[in-house]
Amino acid sequence: MTAAPRRGRPGYDRTQALDAAVAVFIEQGYDGTSISALAEKLGVTKSALYHHFDSKEAILAEALSVALDGLDTVIAAAEQAPGSALDRLTHAMTEAVRLLVREKASVTLLLRVRGNSATERAALERRRDFDARVAGLVSAAQAEGSVRSDVDSRTAARLLFGIVNSVVEWYRGDDAEELARDVVAIGLDGLRVR
Amino acid sequence: MTAAPRRGRPGYDRTQALDAAVAVFIEQGYDGTSISALAEKLGVTKSALYHHFDSKEAILAEALSVALDGLDTVIAAAEQAPGSALDRLTHAMTEAVRLLVREKASVTLLLRVRGNSATERAALERRRDFDARVAGLVSAAQAEGSVRSDVDSRTAARLLFGIVNSVVEWYRGDDAEELARDVVAIGLDGLRVR
Repeated sequence: MTAAPRRGRPGYDRTQALDAAVAVFIEQGYDGTSISALAEKLGVTKSALYHHFDSKEAILAEALSVALDGLDTVIAAAEQAPGSALDRLTHAMTEAVRLLVREKASVTLLLRVRGNSATERAALERRRDFDARVAGLVSAAQAEGSVRSDVDSRTAARLLFGIVNSVVEWYRGDDAEELARDVVAIGLDGLRVR
Repeated sequence: MTAAPRRGRPGYDRTQALDAAVAVFIEQGYDGTSISALAEKLGVTKSALYHHFDSKEAILAEALSVALDGLDTVIAAAEQAPGSALDRLTHAMTEAVRLLVREKASVTLLLRVRGNSATERAALERRRDFDARVAGLVSAAQAEGSVRSDVDSRTAARLLFGIVNSVVEWYRGDDAEELARDVVAIGLDGLRVR
C-alpha cells in the first residue's frame, strides 16, 4: 500500500502513477479512460506517463498482476496446506479475504475485467484457472465427506467466492481477520441457527 | 426477454434498441460508450436512437429501472410474506435469484454502476435502500433466534447478497429454481456437512 498521491502535483514516481491510474480506471472504467484523459486526471503530461509505461494496456497488465499473482499464491498455498480438504478450502477463503482487503484496488479492477483486450482475456483465463482449482478443493472435500454433495462442486466454488469477492464492493473497514471469520462462517456453516 | 436483434439491421423498435444498448454498455462499459459509438455498434443513425431516447443517460435510467423496480417488488413482497423472519429472508433470496436470472442484463448493469451521473447516484441510493431492508430482515431473524447473532446484520446481509449477486457474473443456465435452492442452501446452511 502506498500513500495517496497529491492531486495535480507533477512528478509521480512509478508506483504512485500506477496507483493513481488504477483509481481512475475504477472510477471511470478502463475502456472509458484514454491515456490523454488519464494524464489530465493525474495532472501530468502524456509523455510523463509514457516515461513509466508503454501503453494504457501495460498499466492495466501491471495493475492486474498484483491481484492475479496474489490469487496464484493463495491457491497454491491452500493446495499444499496440511490437514483435510476442508481445511485447505478454509485456508483458500481466509487468505483470499486477506488479499482482497490488502490489494482492494487491483482486485476490484480484476473483477470488472470484460475481455476487450489481450491483457483482459489473459486475466480472465487466469481467473478461470483459479476458479477451477477452488472447485477442485470443493470436490476433494466432498470426496472426504466433509462438504455437502448435493451442490455441484463448481457451483459451490462460485457461490463461496461470490461471498469472498463481494467484499471489494462494500467493505470499508480494515479488520481483515474479523471479515475473514464472517466469510468463512457464512460460507461453511450458513446464517441459520440449528 | 426479447429476441436478440439482428446486427446491422436498421429499424430496431424501442425495446430492441434498449436491449441492444444494454448489451453494448455491458461489453464496453457505460462511461466508455458514447451515443455515436452506440449508434455505430447498433448499425443505426444517432437520430434513430434519439427518436427513441432523449439521451444516453435516459437509456441507462430505463435499463436500470427494470432491475431496481424488480428489487423493490422482491423486498416489499418478502417483508409482507407470512411465517417467520427467516421465512421472509429466504423469500427475498429466492425471489432475487429468480429476478437476476430473468433480468440478467439489467441487473448486471446495475451492479457495475459507479455513481458518475445523477442517474447512477439515484440507482446507488435505491440499492442502499434495498440492502438496508435486507439487513432489517436479518435483524428480525436474529431477534427471533433463527439466525446467528455473532455476525453483524448488515455484514450478514451483504455476504448473503454477495452469493445472490455473484450469479450474474457466472450463471449461464436457465434453471432458476435449482440455482435458488443452491444459493439458499449455501447462504443459510453453509457448505459443511454436520
